[in-house]
Amino acid sequence: MDDIIVKSSSHSYAITIGENVRFLVDNYVTKKYSSILVVSDKTVADLYANDIMNSLKGENTFLSIVPVGEQSKDIRLFYQLHTEAINHGLDRQSLIIALGGGVIGDLAGFVASTYMRGIDYIQLPTTILAHDSSVGGKVAINHELGKNLIGSFYPPKAVIYDTQTLQTLSEKEVRSGYAELIKEALIADGAFLNSLLETDLFSLSTKELEEHLRTGIKIKATIVEEDEKEAGNRKYLNLGHTLGHALETELGYGTITHGEAVAIGLLFSIHVSELMYATKLPYNPLLKWFKKNHYPLDLRNIDEKSLLNIMKSDKKIMNKMIQMVLLKDTGQPTIQELDDEDLHSYLKSFITKLSSE
Amino acid sequence: MDDIIVKSSSHSYAITIGENVRFLVDNYVTKKYSSILVVSDKTVADLYANDIMNSLKGENTFLSIVPVGEQSKDIRLFYQLHTEAINHGLDRQSLIIALGGGVIGDLAGFVASTYMRGIDYIQLPTTILAHDSSVGGKVAINHELGKNLIGSFYPPKAVIYDTQTLQTLSEKEVRSGYAELIKEALIADGAFLNSLLETDLFSLSTKELEEHLRTGIKIKATIVEEDEKEAGNRKYLNLGHTLGHALETELGYGTITHGEAVAIGLLFSIHVSELMYATKLPYNPLLKWFKKNHYPLDLRNIDEKSLLNIMKSDKKIMNKMIQMVLLKDTGQPTIQELDDEDLHSYLKSFITKLSSE
Ligand SMILES: NC(=O)c1ccc[n+]([C@@H]2O[C@H](COP(=O)([O-])OP(=O)(O)OC[C@H]3O[C@@H](n4cnc5c(N)ncnc54)[C@H](O)[C@@H]3O)[C@@H](O)[C@H]2O)c1
Ligand SMILES: NC(=O)c1ccc[n+]([C@@H]2O[C@H](COP(=O)([O-])OP(=O)(O)OC[C@H]3O[C@@H](n4cnc5c(N)ncnc54)[C@H](O)[C@@H]3O)[C@@H](O)[C@H]2O)c1
Ligand SMILES: [Zn+2]
Ligand SMILES: [Zn+2]
Repeated sequence: MDDIIVKSSSHSYAITIGENVRFLVDNYVTKKYSSILVVSDKTVADLYANDIMNSLKGENTFLSIVPVGEQSKDIRLFYQLHTEAINHGLDRQSLIIALGGGVIGDLAGFVASTYMRGIDYIQLPTTILAHDSSVGGKVAINHELGKNLIGSFYPPKAVIYDTQTLQTLSEKEVRSGYAELIKEALIADGAFLNSLLETDLFSLSTKELEEHLRTGIKIKATIVEEDEKEAGNRKYLNLGHTLGHALETELGYGTITHGEAVAIGLLFSIHVSELMYATKLPYNPLLKWFKKNHYPLDLRNIDEKSLLNIMKSDKKIMNKMIQMVLLKDTGQPTIQELDDEDLHSYLKSFITKLSSE
Repeated sequence: MDDIIVKSSSHSYAITIGENVRFLVDNYVTKKYSSILVVSDKTVADLYANDIMNSLKGENTFLSIVPVGEQSKDIRLFYQLHTEAINHGLDRQSLIIALGGGVIGDLAGFVASTYMRGIDYIQLPTTILAHDSSVGGKVAINHELGKNLIGSFYPPKAVIYDTQTLQTLSEKEVRSGYAELIKEALIADGAFLNSLLETDLFSLSTKELEEHLRTGIKIKATIVEEDEKEAGNRKYLNLGHTLGHALETELGYGTITHGEAVAIGLLFSIHVSELMYATKLPYNPLLKWFKKNHYPLDLRNIDEKSLLNIMKSDKKIMNKMIQMVLLKDTGQPTIQELDDEDLHSYLKSFITKLSSE
């Protein structure tokens, strides 16, 4: 099938999606690079690094492996990858390849954006969630005081997405990725939402999956093309993320996946939207689908005060008000400023509602 | 006098040069920012931070002070400034102001380029050398394995250059800055070179200095406008820097200033150029001027093998050959690849020549 082309302010790049394209990576590295550093995490490297290294088969091709998990998106590993790049002799004509999920894409992409003031990089996403993170050029590491606080806007030169690699994902990771697809559907495409809600994550066909990824990527690509630097509409992609990020921080990364946290965040956004705009949104169908697919939704033991504080320290704060993405309808996102008190009461009623169901 | 306008790929910015403009900083901060973080080093902060803070007089204006010297351009201080920015509540609508020399400009600029994926920053250069570093958008920190290896291209929103602050510079720092002016003259403007060679650094008038800064900045601005990302002609600005950087590394930062090291590097480039192109360049007038103005030029105790190794690990290496900027004539720079052996023999003959004079 055809590539999806994304325009960025500096260049256009192609997203190639297909089964087994990882064996052909070499074909997509069109420029002659002086050396290549493939960055991956332990799990993904064990599964797929050989395929990539064999496809590249160049002399100056190196592999750096970082530990699995969100903890690797930190300043120490950032610096260590710089050290390894220097020691391998990477220069300005070198390439970094990010082989893995969103953690690897964000980390290796940020290294590429700052290595000798920026070298090329290519994304080889291996999670469903990474359909989101590999498109749009946001790269970052976490600060101990908050997620993604240190980073750049730095689009990749290409995205090569092998759907076969997604077969080895755990159920948790499938859920995580699908939450972002649901988010994209809620923002932009009611028909897409309906077809997602008909999908059973435990019997997902490759064809279905590829179609969903394609649709999700197109939605994301359209939004970031219009607003690369998140001055306006790109903010809509944060739907579900105000509470989502807070849950990740509060529970500790690793307890709940990014997308699982976003799933709860999506329900919260819809809850607030329904109350604020006196409108009817697909809260129930979504809740039902989340339950059917075993999303963790239990907030009974959560410390809501602490959640609230984390949300307030979130970077989307302007003038000390919290900015939340809400929905006037499916496909009609909007930004709303909320003060502490309102947020608190919405959160209270949401937790009560979710716990009673 | 008129501002100099520099076009970058993302925006244009003005360079304002004049006596006492630091008291008017507020006038040049045209956008409404939610908060401002001024970054400076201890020496500069003691001298000028009050003037700036008084001019800004806003509620959300903060000052971060880092230790003096090249050692501050490192990953720990980079992270620490991020921490302080977060703790002061800086958001995406905030501004960073770099008040100081090239170290502060490079460090604070790099923090700005990565804080929440990039916020605005303004340069308030306080050294002569910073006429160079504050223009063109190169920001960076050092890696323990090499200078400026971690950074971005990220132009400031404005440069506000108060020539009065340059009165408190030490002789060493005046020499350092003038070496970069000499470099710009060698690359682009024979008449400018002649007027610099008539200048006595020990009796420099404000008028002269301002004129020199203006001419140097215009040369630099013209080059970076044509080649922002250093794909071509911008490399010419590295004239004298292959050996210059190696000397800084070998002797240890602090022993010799950046510009003093570049001064020796300029002589070396001319030496190589004269031999390679069988041409006559102003080696002698330059040497004489450096001596008259007390530039340190003694290389007798230097370990040339070690210098050579450092040059080879320099980031301008492509295909394992060293790229050097040379001169076919004053105003006619060119890039030349040199292999190890040639470089070694040129270095040997240069050290012998310099030591015999
Ligand atoms: N840059 C962006 O625009 C953007 C957007 C959304 C999310 N993100 C970031 O993405 C990150 C989350 O991404 P993620 O969920 O992909 O995390 P991840 O990279 O940690 O991957 C999740 C887990 O799946 C494993 N894994 C990856 N591919 C596999 C495969 N093919 N088979 C088996 N196991 C595999 C990994 O080892 C890991 O344990 C977060 O840090 C988030 O901030 C970034
Ligand atoms: N980004 C670029 O394009 C670029 C270009 C050239 C150099 N640089 C970088 O610039 C740095 C060197 O810059 P620098 O020489 O300005 O170093 P610097 O910032 O360390 O300043 C030199 C010294 O002068 C002191 N000082 C600064 N202003 C003063 C004042 N007005 N009065 C009294 N003392 C003052 C400082 O405290 C310091 O001790 C290097 O790190 C180099 O890599 C960057
Ligand atoms: Zn997300
Ligand atoms: Zn320099």
